[in-house]
Amino acid sequence: MQQDKPEPEGSMEWRSPSNIALIKYWGKQGNQIPMNPSLSMTLKYAFTQTEVKWRPNDGTTQGEFDFFLSGQKVGPKFEKRVGNLIKEMAKAYPVLNDLYFSITSLNTFPHSTGIASSASGLSALALSLLSAAQRATGKADEYPRFLQKASHYARLGSGSACRSIYGPYAIWGGGVNTESSDEYAIPYKPHQDFEIIYDSILIFSEKPKKVGSSAGHKLMDEHFYRQGRINQVRENSIRLLKALETGDFEMWQEVVEQEALSLHGLMFASHEPVLLLEPDTIRFIHDLNAFRAGKGLKVAFTIDAGPNIHLLYADEHREIIRNFISEWIMDHHLQIQVLDDETGKGAKQLFE
Amino acid sequence: MQQDKPEPEGSMEWRSPSNIALIKYWGKQGNQIPMNPSLSMTLKYAFTQTEVKWRPNDGTTQGEFDFFLSGQKVGPKFEKRVGNLIKEMAKAYPVLNDLYFSITSLNTFPHSTGIASSASGLSALALSLLSAAQRATGKADEYPRFLQKASHYARLGSGSACRSIYGPYAIWGGGVNTESSDEYAIPYKPHQDFEIIYDSILIFSEKPKKVGSSAGHKLMDEHFYRQGRINQVRENSIRLLKALETGDFEMWQEVVEQEALSLHGLMFASHEPVLLLEPDTIRFIHDLNAFRAGKGLKVAFTIDAGPNIHLLYADEHREIIRNFISEWIMDHHLQIQVLDDETGKGAKQLFE
Repeated sequence: MQQDKPEPEGSMEWRSPSNIALIKYWGKQGNQIPMNPSLSMTLKYAFTQTEVKWRPNDGTTQGEFDFFLSGQKVGPKFEKRVGNLIKEMAKAYPVLNDLYFSITSLNTFPHSTGIASSASGLSALALSLLSAAQRATGKADEYPRFLQKASHYARLGSGSACRSIYGPYAIWGGGVNTESSDEYAIPYKPHQDFEIIYDSILIFSEKPKKVGSSAGHKLMDEHFYRQGRINQVRENSIRLLKALETGDFEMWQEVVEQEALSLHGLMFASHEPVLLLEPDTIRFIHDLNAFRAGKGLKVAFTIDAGPNIHLLYADEHREIIRNFISEWIMDHHLQIQVLDDETGKGAKQLFE
Repeated sequence: MQQDKPEPEGSMEWRSPSNIALIKYWGKQGNQIPMNPSLSMTLKYAFTQTEVKWRPNDGTTQGEFDFFLSGQKVGPKFEKRVGNLIKEMAKAYPVLNDLYFSITSLNTFPHSTGIASSASGLSALALSLLSAAQRATGKADEYPRFLQKASHYARLGSGSACRSIYGPYAIWGGGVNTESSDEYAIPYKPHQDFEIIYDSILIFSEKPKKVGSSAGHKLMDEHFYRQGRINQVRENSIRLLKALETGDFEMWQEVVEQEALSLHGLMFASHEPVLLLEPDTIRFIHDLNAFRAGKGLKVAFTIDAGPNIHLLYADEHREIIRNFISEWIMDHHLQIQVLDDETGKGAKQLFE
């Protein structure tokens, strides 16, 4: 990332993956500061690729841009989010006010699969815009510092996006260790047994979420279980890190599943109760519990703020788990999508 | 209940209904003291009828009895519970140690329908044993005091049983008003619009509970959300009483459904997560929400520590709700039982 001559026009492209939270981010405060720390596994195949082309604008407008997602002009809501991100970045890089951006973005995963595309989307965007800003000024950061800044800006765009910068795992939120921060995520490397975990994502519903992320996080503001939740995450973070460090799959499963169910439990108990689970979500968990009972399989489910199951498992049980999934889908005559993914390395710059 | 001559042998019979908690009892401490107050609606048709016959025992044994439920000798687990209750009552009524009891009990609702029979069963038993004890000693309490004592003993047998003594509603747990107590329940009479509420109980699973009541309550001992739950119940109790007093069906629905989902949310977030909901529980709630949206129907669902839905509704919407239930069951080709019940008056002594 060395450079010294400003480039008044050019293009930068980044690929940034989605991530699945094992310790859940639920509740925020201030300007995208999380209520509690979170920890995620970075995915490999579900990613967004975003190219930012820049050139000087006509001098009469600020922060103008076009944004095409999969060839379609994005809607006003997402456009506003992008505009806000550019404004935030312009505080540190005023040059952005003098540029016009043409942004094109692609997701590898099908639209409306219930996978949060904001994590990959906003992190790819933050990375590309930050690259553009540094090119345009001729002042590039060293790589670790650049990624940390990108994570910071990604966070302002969408909380979970700050974790997508890094792999194989990422921690966001202060107090987990001396390096973790509320401002940006840091990478985390676990015991080798957890370096490659498979993730089969069962898409039970492609409907858009009934409760948007911001409204969802707001449910924690006055939640009766707020302090209890903060204490719970503290313990779960300690336990999950211990499991990931020592290779303890049993503890890993316990924490991962408790976090998933706690997230939905918190939604259930909100002032306005939220039920995002679908009948098949429940059916799958019951059947999984019956199937794996006593077998000691290295498998755990997690669920985000939606109905879809992420089934996480180790390589040694890959075949038995994939067979279970296939047979379960056949047994219930379901027509659902399954996206097979695995642990990934984080964001990556693309060169022509 | 006037008498003065001891009756060394005789028989007493009581009928005691089940009840459905609107504010949930979940978590206990000490000897059957609830973690928080609860409030229930008493049912009318789901009841237990228990006859206790007594005669002097042979003087060498204490607290001996036979117990037949629906003509079958009860299992050792329930037998132990009955024995413990007799022992507790013998502290105040030592005469019980000199008696032999022959107990027969019947439930009106089918066995294994997922309705807690311990509420009606233990309250009918406590009432009959207390009657027997007072007959055998010749010292009968006045009616209000007798019922309060029976509620106290019913509580020792099974927490929710203490509420089954009274109708149309009952409150158990101190601090709700000047009369409420942790030791026994008190009756509660609401606004006339809430005097008759129908309850259609949809039995989605007849399987025995995966987590027994005692193990379930224990989950609250070290629960991270314990204090938050106590605060939540405080607010929900105030709100529900206000709704019941003023006839506010909208607030009633909000509180009743939040309590139901919070109970399951607490189970989700326990150290050992518990998932008692069935796929059809979730399906029904989603479909109910879609059906009633914007219609202003006086209807609310609640769920106990199991998968079955209690659908509560006012008389004026009885037809539309019963039609909805029938059509929903037909649409999904389900073969499930529905028990139609309504608000009841509480326990009742039976005379030949």
